[in-house]
Amino acid sequence: MDFESFFKGELNGLHQEGRYRVFADLERQRGQFPKAIRYNADGEKQDVTVWCSNDYLGVGQHPKVIEAMKLAIDQCGAGAGGTRNISGTNHHHVVLERELADLHGKESALLFTSGYVSNWAALGTLCSKIPGVIVFSDAGNHASMIEGIRHSKCERVIFKHNSVADLEAKLAAADPRAPKIIAFESVYSMDGDISPIKEICDLADKYGAMTYLDEVHAVGMYGPRGGGIAEREGLMHRLTVIEGTLGKAFGVMGGYIAASSALCDFIRSFASGFIFTTALPPALAAGAVASIRHLKESQIERFAHQERVRRLRNLLDKNGIPHMANSSHIVPVIVGDAAKCKWISDLLLDNCGIYVQPINYPTVPKKTERLRITPTPLHSDADIDHLVGALHQLWSRCALARAVA
Amino acid sequence: MDFESFFKGELNGLHQEGRYRVFADLERQRGQFPKAIRYNADGEKQDVTVWCSNDYLGVGQHPKVIEAMKLAIDQCGAGAGGTRNISGTNHHHVVLERELADLHGKESALLFTSGYVSNWAALGTLCSKIPGVIVFSDAGNHASMIEGIRHSKCERVIFKHNSVADLEAKLAAADPRAPKIIAFESVYSMDGDISPIKEICDLADKYGAMTYLDEVHAVGMYGPRGGGIAEREGLMHRLTVIEGTLGKAFGVMGGYIAASSALCDFIRSFASGFIFTTALPPALAAGAVASIRHLKESQIERFAHQERVRRLRNLLDKNGIPHMANSSHIVPVIVGDAAKCKWISDLLLDNCGIYVQPINYPTVPKKTERLRITPTPLHSDADIDHLVGALHQLWSRCALARAVA
Ligand SMILES: Cc1ncc(COP(=O)(O)O)c(C=O)c1O
Ligand SMILES: Cc1ncc(COP(=O)(O)O)c(C=O)c1O
Repeated sequence: MDFESFFKGELNGLHQEGRYRVFADLERQRGQFPKAIRYNADGEKQDVTVWCSNDYLGVGQHPKVIEAMKLAIDQCGAGAGGTRNISGTNHHHVVLERELADLHGKESALLFTSGYVSNWAALGTLCSKIPGVIVFSDAGNHASMIEGIRHSKCERVIFKHNSVADLEAKLAAADPRAPKIIAFESVYSMDGDISPIKEICDLADKYGAMTYLDEVHAVGMYGPRGGGIAEREGLMHRLTVIEGTLGKAFGVMGGYIAASSALCDFIRSFASGFIFTTALPPALAAGAVASIRHLKESQIERFAHQERVRRLRNLLDKNGIPHMANSSHIVPVIVGDAAKCKWISDLLLDNCGIYVQPINYPTVPKKTERLRITPTPLHSDADIDHLVGALHQLWSRCALARAVA
Repeated sequence: MDFESFFKGELNGLHQEGRYRVFADLERQRGQFPKAIRYNADGEKQDVTVWCSNDYLGVGQHPKVIEAMKLAIDQCGAGAGGTRNISGTNHHHVVLERELADLHGKESALLFTSGYVSNWAALGTLCSKIPGVIVFSDAGNHASMIEGIRHSKCERVIFKHNSVADLEAKLAAADPRAPKIIAFESVYSMDGDISPIKEICDLADKYGAMTYLDEVHAVGMYGPRGGGIAEREGLMHRLTVIEGTLGKAFGVMGGYIAASSALCDFIRSFASGFIFTTALPPALAAGAVASIRHLKESQIERFAHQERVRRLRNLLDKNGIPHMANSSHIVPVIVGDAAKCKWISDLLLDNCGIYVQPINYPTVPKKTERLRITPTPLHSDADIDHLVGALHQLWSRCALARAVA
């Protein structure tokens, strides 16, 4: 087989569908966020405003986080130097796991190298090791959950996105003796909608299922201590597993689960994706601890974040730019075509210094290609005006569908 | 189902087999490596010498690496703030990928959050996307490669560890028209043996197979520029994919593949484990660049490393402590029993301040439980004498098998 031709052929297919991805080469500027420098293809630099970061609160440049990281590098050096079992456990990991258990009101927490790996490894292990388990998985679940479940080869039942009725029908139809896991998210990242956590927990109780909740797009941002939507709604104790990331609102990198001691110890002992990999650098753990501790106490970022989101939405509405309704901080502007979406994004970047990456398949379903806008507390009024002004012009120029006022 | 009892039961099984893992809670001391502080169960601190780190050259505390990381944190902040596609590509990633391509003499390189993820995602994607592919996988391959191959559900053929004859027999028996991948490692981390790369490449040519080589335990340490065993043997150009980690000899964290532009672009475009996860923090990329650049030029660490390994082996031989013969830097002392291995390790730690984690199943096969000793350039003569003295005493006291002189 001519492997090179095969790869090129597949890449050509992406080009033709208009969904070949070009990464923006950025240089984040600490203290300037959401401003950044972009290197274009010729190596020239351009000032841009980032409108699609998942450093949702800008905490990735908070002095407490920066200082904690630099201090840990000075203390401990660069990397962990081993897997968690073989010399790689650092005291900063131990402290971070305690901090995370406390954040979610659980006995224990377990750290992974990313949120992706935490979902993949935790669900993969639970679903493959619990004999005869059936997993009920929301149709909108993230790739990392899907891959973990797929990997386990267990029986899986997909329920309609956020549909309590469909979930109940499917639970009722399953073997009552089979162990069950319900896997879902709180904030779905591409539509920004929020799941009915309480109702799903009620069903879990009724059918004896374990619950596994991905709060990746909610931790740090919701709840009085940043514990997520489940904290905000007083439901954390009803979830068997809460999974989260340290790479979005906490501004660093890494993933985790919080659950009972026995469950965490079980995953710690059996999950390939936890066992066979170098531990997070101590400095990342130290930065995450600083970030979590800060957001446990400070409300300023959360309030400002929600206020910025409201302001942006109001202005979009006034200008007839259609965006999906939801009760989270994510503002999706649907374009519905991969090539057009990329074209708009390129114009915004090249002409207006506005960086919003086009989101296309497989991140979202085809025909729902979109600009996914994420305002942060650090976007100014002028930033918002500039963004909406630019969108307004494009919408006028390009005969894109307007929202009915 | 009573999930808690199930987890506890499984954990009890591990306790009974003597292979329940207890992580040593360490605090690495920059500038003091391989010395570290260990927190014991009561929270008391103990000075220890680490003898099982995979920061093989101690580069994780090199001033160039430390300064590069701190500078990048000052410049760019803590995290990347997004996936590579959605605002997470930082100029430091771009520079690092160029550095890695150059290190291995390839057109291109692609960065992942870890070596584990790079194997899992790259092999998983190649094996699932190339129609009808058969993968020939060395029986000793790392969990991350196995899981990637398993995930793809492609046809796989396991060949006897490092056996060119068995590989050839299996290649000859397979459908000649099927596309083929041979997946193997250079240095196998638990036995420290090295694969016949040239002979495997010859077979790949003969049977039209692609080669995928994991150099995780060789990059930075072998070859005039630290390109690994394939560089040392002048074979880099014969491998389709070279995979490595930034978390061992390079002292930081992250993983990568180096290959043709089309292959890297293909993985970049299709691999779930690459696409759907937050990018490495800019500071880790910057630290890795510093580390790679340093080890491209400096031979001191590599020479000192090999010399330390020889000295340790000689002293073990003189004292009749059996260790596996191999031509790498890894010194496995086989104990062959999980409980005994842990007991020895505990005695070394508690009585002598020597930390060598016991290695047990599933990291190594049952009955080959071992102490895996990794000397670094920074272990002094006194450290080596102390280690061998302690082992000698234990061997005398416990009637452990002696090597025949
Ligand atoms: C819902 C969800 N879960 C998990 C992840 C993975 O988290 P991480 O970026 O830490 O790997 C993401 C996004 O990256 C996500 O959107
Ligand atoms: C052979 C091999 N490949 C890959 C890995 C994974 O690399 P990383 O630690 O960067 O995840 C390891 C060890 O951790 C390994 O031993």
